[in-house]
Amino acid sequence: MQFVPDVLNERCGSRLVLNHVTSRWGGLVLIALLDGTLRFSSLRRRIGGVSERMLTQSLRLLERDGLIERIAHQVVPPHVDYRLSPMGRDVAEKVLALAQCIEGNLDKIMEFREAGAEGAATAD
Amino acid sequence: MQFVPDVLNERCGSRLVLNHVTSRWGGLVLIALLDGTLRFSSLRRRIGGVSERMLTQSLRLLERDGLIERIAHQVVPPHVDYRLSPMGRDVAEKVLALAQCIEGNLDKIMEFREAGAEGAATAD
Repeated sequence: MQFVPDVLNERCGSRLVLNHVTSRWGGLVLIALLDGTLRFSSLRRRIGGVSERMLTQSLRLLERDGLIERIAHQVVPPHVDYRLSPMGRDVAEKVLALAQCIEGNLDKIMEFREAGAEGAATAD
Repeated sequence: MQFVPDVLNERCGSRLVLNHVTSRWGGLVLIALLDGTLRFSSLRRRIGGVSERMLTQSLRLLERDGLIERIAHQVVPPHVDYRLSPMGRDVAEKVLALAQCIEGNLDKIMEFREAGAEGAATAD
């Protein structure tokens, strides 16, 4: 019997990877790296609001999954670059398509949220 | 000046919606509903491992964003259906494309993770 990956199955490893890729910062890291190789500090500037700790953690998870590559240059002071692996680029493009879909629908979503909030206020 | 949505900007509302859509269960709810309208109990069975509480919470967030519709039938006992809104379907298709990309690369990702774990063990 062949095993077919399925994120709806809780025992499928794809769900773990989906969680990394769509974690609070993981998806934004992938999107930011679509622009090209970046140093830690530039990556951090590019992603509004991310802390050094959270960025380090997200990078480590994505590196372990083989989605991003860490390149440590043997220089003083240390210089570390991050870039997408070919597989990471595939995944990042799908995350970007999702983000753009939400960005494109944002006006409608915000109208909806406001109408809902008003309805809830009236109901009180 | 026109406001252009950008998930990399921490003050953009799109990031909040992206968080709902990619929350631990939010994305799986959207994928499950791509099959069609479902009752709460069927939806719960479809998504392995989700608790009643987490499913309720995820449905409420996605409903507030206008991505899913809750249809309460006026019958006894109560019967509530959930389905994607047209906008929700757009978003759900992007989440599915992302999940399928990960499912398709899962063998490679798992090999990578195992090689990394072995490397770490050797280095100890």
